[in-house]
Amino acid sequence: MNRFWSPAIRSLEPYTPGEQPRIEGLTKLNTNENPYPPSPAVTDALRHFPTDRLRLYPDPNASRLKDALASTFSLTREQIFVGNGSDEVLALAFMAFFRQSRPLLMPNISYSFYDVYANLFGIEFRKLPLDDRFRIRLEDYPGNNGGIIFANPNAPTGIAIGLDEIEALLKRNSDSLVLVDEAYVDFGGESAKTLIAAYPNLLVVQTFSKSRSLAGLRIGFAFGHPELIDALERVKNSFNSYPLDMLAIEAACASLSEPEYFAQTCKRIIDTRDRSAKQLEALGFVVLPSSTNFLFARHQRITGAQLMAYLRERKILVRHFGKPDIEDYLRITVGTDEEMDRLLNALETHPEIAR
Amino acid sequence: MNRFWSPAIRSLEPYTPGEQPRIEGLTKLNTNENPYPPSPAVTDALRHFPTDRLRLYPDPNASRLKDALASTFSLTREQIFVGNGSDEVLALAFMAFFRQSRPLLMPNISYSFYDVYANLFGIEFRKLPLDDRFRIRLEDYPGNNGGIIFANPNAPTGIAIGLDEIEALLKRNSDSLVLVDEAYVDFGGESAKTLIAAYPNLLVVQTFSKSRSLAGLRIGFAFGHPELIDALERVKNSFNSYPLDMLAIEAACASLSEPEYFAQTCKRIIDTRDRSAKQLEALGFVVLPSSTNFLFARHQRITGAQLMAYLRERKILVRHFGKPDIEDYLRITVGTDEEMDRLLNALETHPEIAR
Repeated sequence: MNRFWSPAIRSLEPYTPGEQPRIEGLTKLNTNENPYPPSPAVTDALRHFPTDRLRLYPDPNASRLKDALASTFSLTREQIFVGNGSDEVLALAFMAFFRQSRPLLMPNISYSFYDVYANLFGIEFRKLPLDDRFRIRLEDYPGNNGGIIFANPNAPTGIAIGLDEIEALLKRNSDSLVLVDEAYVDFGGESAKTLIAAYPNLLVVQTFSKSRSLAGLRIGFAFGHPELIDALERVKNSFNSYPLDMLAIEAACASLSEPEYFAQTCKRIIDTRDRSAKQLEALGFVVLPSSTNFLFARHQRITGAQLMAYLRERKILVRHFGKPDIEDYLRITVGTDEEMDRLLNALETHPEIAR
Repeated sequence: MNRFWSPAIRSLEPYTPGEQPRIEGLTKLNTNENPYPPSPAVTDALRHFPTDRLRLYPDPNASRLKDALASTFSLTREQIFVGNGSDEVLALAFMAFFRQSRPLLMPNISYSFYDVYANLFGIEFRKLPLDDRFRIRLEDYPGNNGGIIFANPNAPTGIAIGLDEIEALLKRNSDSLVLVDEAYVDFGGESAKTLIAAYPNLLVVQTFSKSRSLAGLRIGFAFGHPELIDALERVKNSFNSYPLDMLAIEAACASLSEPEYFAQTCKRIIDTRDRSAKQLEALGFVVLPSSTNFLFARHQRITGAQLMAYLRERKILVRHFGKPDIEDYLRITVGTDEEMDRLLNALETHPEIAR
């Protein structure tokens, strides 16, 4: 705290990303990173990029990437926004749409950055509880709100809801914006992308960080009605003209050019996830049904904090949220089969599990 | 305009960056890009970067880059902030420091993004006129303000003021933050970096985009008292945890490792600038004294709009701001000697100049 700070930032509680430690031999299952490298086309594109061009500014509109996304997702360029990771896209969307006189609605358990954005921009919000099986209950969300945001599949639960529920919400809630954060959709969710043409109040946000193995390059995007995209562009161009650098644009376009590689790595992760979930259940875990690249699970006899510490001692990093309702759960990123075996072997030898 | 937009964004007038056209054979002197490629160490680092690491998130603190900057500038890591270009650093600084009850002060002619940030965040501001030689008059800036921001050297005038004037301002204005935007300082300005230890109300912002030929990778940074840096980190971590991607961090560190290359390219640009200024004067231009990599000049008999159009027809792009007081001026980026000769030759054959 300091007399030069804006009063509004004194009470901020910033988001805490998962640790990025540099420990030799670590099994890192804490930040939902993809265990497989990005597409070989990405390596190729980066190796051949003419670095003398880096002296120039990037295209502020990243038109080449928008066109590649339009082609991949059968949309038009005017329905697409791109930014520095989906975190930046979400932050800009909060500024563009959620600074309203009525409160923003969100699930009480969801991506914890939503509260942080709301506090940063002075946005009032209200949290609605999940049901007792950790499902989002959109039917509980009242009208006359300043917007609705949720992740689908949700994080950290991993649970997806169906498009029919989202469509019903869009119909009931036609006067305010619904933002569906689809960071994990490629691992088994159903994208609301198909509803964009019919619902001008829908914004869908996705990322290259998980399913496309490009967390290191910070590329997020949004789909919506051209007037929503226009709002995001206005805010972006009032904040930072060029959030996507030349190499990020280059790598993202290359990644989109290899749909087979993308489909294969997603399938491998889904297969590893499903057999790991069964094995965790066999060890006495309660595992929520995951449509993502992580498993949200608690052990019937051991607390989340204890298990997290136990695994950490064995150089296996998972994520634990010390929050009400979910404090006994661990969020375990789906790694390679080898990494998951390492986790499962470590758990099998836990004294409370082995007995 | 759309019913889902936040009311505050309806009146935004976004910043307009200089054009980035893809025209064959264009002489591009409109966006103050460096005519020389980045250091060979950058190319080397990017060529050897292990692309499989891109599946991981970058270090959210970019500690390696902060350490490299600390070493280059003889500061500590705690005095350094890094972001996605100096535009993002400035935007975060507006949120962190300038959302005050009293108005922000700035020169009436300066980087035109300052107004845009202020409008985005609902910050009241007051503009103070330059003197009749286009110099910033810090002695006119009243106390009891919500902060002061200016560029030194200033843009688009190119004129630098001395550290003695800045130090006097910091003393007079000890209750509010002074942000000195030094995007162009490496081309002849004197950095206020040396005043940071003594003045806890000083924030200095610089960039890799101009003097380090890395506009394409979006790297900006700030120096200040650790409590100011802490405020920037809080806002950044409430907005986007990882604005600098792995390749940007890698390239920035590589660039800092080659100070000789940096010094040489800056000197070449300064030499080209100084002889080009003399030649423009010989053609009837009034040229402001530049400490930057651009020249701000008007012709005694031809309007700025006419000259801009004349050059554009000859595939030479310069920047023209259609604003009061400076509408007859062109901002001409200093390119290579060959590019400047192309510009000078085109001007020599203008019917109003050749006579």
